[in-house]
Amino acid sequence: MTNPRRIIVIGGSAAGPKAAAKARRIDNDAEVIILQKEADLSMASCGYPYYVGGFFDDRNQLLCTPAGVVRNPMFYLNAKDIEARVNTEVTAIDRKHKTLSFKNLADGEAGTLPYDKLVIATGAVPRMPPVPGADLDGISTLQSMKDADFLRNVRDEGKIKKAVVIGGGLIGIETCEALQLAGIEITVIELLPQLLTFLDWELAKLVENHVKSKGANVITDNGIAAFLGENGKLTAVKLENGTELPCELAVVAIGVRPNVKLAKEAGLKIGELGGIDVNEYMQTSDPDIYAVGDCVESVNRITGKKVHAPYGDLANLQGRVAGENAASENYVTFPGTIQTGICKVFDYAAGSTGLSETAARKLGYTDIVTVVNASPDKPGFMEGKLLVTKLTADAKSGRILGAQCIGPGNVAKQIAQWAMAIQGKLTVEDLINADLPYAPPFSLAIDHFIATAHLLQNKMKGRLKGISCHQVYLKILAGEKPFLIDTRGPEEFEEIRLGISETLIPLGAIRKRLKELPQDKNREIICYCKISLRGYEAALALGANGWKNVKVMEGGIMAWPYPRDK
Amino acid sequence: MTNPRRIIVIGGSAAGPKAAAKARRIDNDAEVIILQKEADLSMASCGYPYYVGGFFDDRNQLLCTPAGVVRNPMFYLNAKDIEARVNTEVTAIDRKHKTLSFKNLADGEAGTLPYDKLVIATGAVPRMPPVPGADLDGISTLQSMKDADFLRNVRDEGKIKKAVVIGGGLIGIETCEALQLAGIEITVIELLPQLLTFLDWELAKLVENHVKSKGANVITDNGIAAFLGENGKLTAVKLENGTELPCELAVVAIGVRPNVKLAKEAGLKIGELGGIDVNEYMQTSDPDIYAVGDCVESVNRITGKKVHAPYGDLANLQGRVAGENAASENYVTFPGTIQTGICKVFDYAAGSTGLSETAARKLGYTDIVTVVNASPDKPGFMEGKLLVTKLTADAKSGRILGAQCIGPGNVAKQIAQWAMAIQGKLTVEDLINADLPYAPPFSLAIDHFIATAHLLQNKMKGRLKGISCHQVYLKILAGEKPFLIDTRGPEEFEEIRLGISETLIPLGAIRKRLKELPQDKNREIICYCKISLRGYEAALALGANGWKNVKVMEGGIMAWPYPRDK
Repeated sequence: MTNPRRIIVIGGSAAGPKAAAKARRIDNDAEVIILQKEADLSMASCGYPYYVGGFFDDRNQLLCTPAGVVRNPMFYLNAKDIEARVNTEVTAIDRKHKTLSFKNLADGEAGTLPYDKLVIATGAVPRMPPVPGADLDGISTLQSMKDADFLRNVRDEGKIKKAVVIGGGLIGIETCEALQLAGIEITVIELLPQLLTFLDWELAKLVENHVKSKGANVITDNGIAAFLGENGKLTAVKLENGTELPCELAVVAIGVRPNVKLAKEAGLKIGELGGIDVNEYMQTSDPDIYAVGDCVESVNRITGKKVHAPYGDLANLQGRVAGENAASENYVTFPGTIQTGICKVFDYAAGSTGLSETAARKLGYTDIVTVVNASPDKPGFMEGKLLVTKLTADAKSGRILGAQCIGPGNVAKQIAQWAMAIQGKLTVEDLINADLPYAPPFSLAIDHFIATAHLLQNKMKGRLKGISCHQVYLKILAGEKPFLIDTRGPEEFEEIRLGISETLIPLGAIRKRLKELPQDKNREIICYCKISLRGYEAALALGANGWKNVKVMEGGIMAWPYPRDK
Repeated sequence: MTNPRRIIVIGGSAAGPKAAAKARRIDNDAEVIILQKEADLSMASCGYPYYVGGFFDDRNQLLCTPAGVVRNPMFYLNAKDIEARVNTEVTAIDRKHKTLSFKNLADGEAGTLPYDKLVIATGAVPRMPPVPGADLDGISTLQSMKDADFLRNVRDEGKIKKAVVIGGGLIGIETCEALQLAGIEITVIELLPQLLTFLDWELAKLVENHVKSKGANVITDNGIAAFLGENGKLTAVKLENGTELPCELAVVAIGVRPNVKLAKEAGLKIGELGGIDVNEYMQTSDPDIYAVGDCVESVNRITGKKVHAPYGDLANLQGRVAGENAASENYVTFPGTIQTGICKVFDYAAGSTGLSETAARKLGYTDIVTVVNASPDKPGFMEGKLLVTKLTADAKSGRILGAQCIGPGNVAKQIAQWAMAIQGKLTVEDLINADLPYAPPFSLAIDHFIATAHLLQNKMKGRLKGISCHQVYLKILAGEKPFLIDTRGPEEFEEIRLGISETLIPLGAIRKRLKELPQDKNREIICYCKISLRGYEAALALGANGWKNVKVMEGGIMAWPYPRDK
């Protein structure tokens, strides 16, 4: 090994610069070089949708330090003593001789560079649908600074009237909002039966309802068959069911795949999911080469299985680990991910951590319990806003497996709490008496998080017989006739109601109106209210009066994702 | 024991009704009775300051269910099958015969009631300063609905021009804000050298500066000597140092003491801190009597020691535990508190969980490490707002002992994360790669919480030689001459600067201007910037160039609580 050690980082977006900076901090003497194919460095790529959507107007803010200094090669040299070369594509890695070949995309000059340690941070590339017309003008992704510039220009010009977003995942939904804010008529197309697959269907449907309420169209269960155009320009998107959606712009957001071309050609081991295989030190199958960010596979800390988790926060954390290890020995490890994510959706946020019920079942977890809780995040007098949480836990141990939360309330705080609970390997029992920061401007006296744990505990102890909105809906579809009681007040009932042959019996009247209930004490009765707190009280009252098959519809009307009467 | 079991709850504010409701849910057959001295039930007492301050105008919102139903005796009877008697003071408990005596404060009628199980939830009473004049008109607390009505009336009438708040704790600060918002000129008096003693001094001082920036006066290190008046009406507050503060209103908020009169007279064991002694089942020294809420002592889960923790959230959780145990056997336990708290302070929030450094040292923890971190909560382009966190951990194990956070940013989320980390018994190492919900509208790519753990790890590994603003200030006061470097840009320096004989050397220029530094490589050099991220980079650059005694002022200018030049 030469002295000083030369550490080369391939990729200058998130994980790469973080690895370079950490390597520099660990080894003052090392030569640290970033080779970046793009013209820009350290782009805040998660911020693109907000630039496109006009949350801010200064493009430089995507490239600046918090103090307003653009992170260009001069900045890296002066502030961090790191040589950053932009417009520089690495074309090959020669592992035997420990050199790499590069080409300067600006002047065409090529060369080779020896390395002692290499960090690959080549990111991911957007997947494109294998359909005709993909080369038409007017089709974009939102993956690069160039894409962001293009779409921001669309906003600024104000010419485009109709656009289609292909893909209802995180980026698709963020793009949908951004373009909708630009005054463009948007349709989101999703091949699967729901948006945001990190959520279970019923929560995703609530998000979809919110997106639609903002004027965007959503088409699920339908894929794209072709891009149609005239004179080389996009004019419509054709769906698998034949529908044609006229549009001048299509943004493809059907996910990304790890960019492993370079690594593969160099003979590094690629994982089953298509990402570079790394160990806990972020080291590839070549001990002198590390890899980080969207191009690698990570370990899911709950299941122990490999996943592809292209998240900006993980990229930064992995970069830090690889940077330290590349600059020293393998001292530090990256423990993996619990796949925590969050997404702004107009006035809602949608977040998830750990396993959804769907994900858990797909992985073979069978002995699990779930509950849905809806409540405001703060008291009414502090203008509390709705949160709907679905919690999944192991039925035997009570260990938290995952939580999802959506709504206009402080979703980020809820998900952060669940994420820490999962990382602490905590159980439902542990959370029952959690000590969280309470004051009315910030939470309910019993925080939504704790109340959700209470509900699941009550369910696990058999005190709360919960039934999901989805199950109730299926019963109705199947022609079953459970006796449905809405336990709210008449005024509330006039304003909003499901219209599923329910009987209105306000909680305060239920003990006096027992005669109106089915006299067969074994008849299935399902109680609910706005959030099913009064529904729960009512169910207890009925249980106390001898009815044996009384259920509570979890989350109440606020968790009902289907059309309603009013 | 009679059948059905009669469970009587004394006190109808927070813990009491929760205990009653839980008891009812556990035992359908039990007779559940609440005896409440006040006219109201289930008051959201933590909401009083926001009613007084005009955040909302409808008094009923303090007494309502989320659906807008006032929680009066009729509501308890109809919705919960609980008999709630208001204006009913319990005057004695006869443990031998298992009866209690009560008096109806409205009609004077007295009586006795037998009980099977009793739950005492008598709350706390405000401490009053033992000084002359305390009976003058114009002196209030903010502890009861009556107080809230009185102070709200002060706001609505708009006659009072000057007020003094005695006590700079949580309630004092909330009251200060409420009255300030009512257009009243406010002075807060605090006997101790700082506001909000759950914070360490330097963070409390930052809060004090914010309070002052809003136009309120703050006097610390000074107690009240007397209330002065004319014709029975308050005209001024006289301080221990002789200062007289003219005012027409004084609100006393110097803390509360457990209301244990009834329990004491009944011979129940009282703890060393003056609260009712209870075990983990919330059971008093009499197995048929439980006690919950502000009248009891709790266990601190970190230290194992008893504390008096009069928080609304704990009261509710304790009520739930006592209610279940009173209605069955002792099945469930309350594990205690980590003393998590939060408080809105104008545009700031101030929160804490676990032990502050001061608290830890007072308890005899010597081998501890701390760090101060300042950063925005979100990226600049999403209008991130400042957070300043101080983290305290055990130096050997790295286990988190406590964290405090203040600022205009999302403090509640930060404190919630730390609270869960403490409850999971996590260490600094565990948090280095925490997987939290990241998207630009919600956090930085490396959340402030994780970055704080990174800083402390760097400090524990000796990579970051941190020094607190307070220590720097003491050095300057002592006439020491550390070489101080502000590493920001010239424009920033023109706008804000400390003026402590610092030298401005922007980070980007530091490697070129090494000649301007002290040539004695052992000279103490202290670097900082706005939040000391660039200060840290600069310190690393100097270390790489041979300087051996380079420190970073933690939190930078944003954590500097002393007067500054600009």
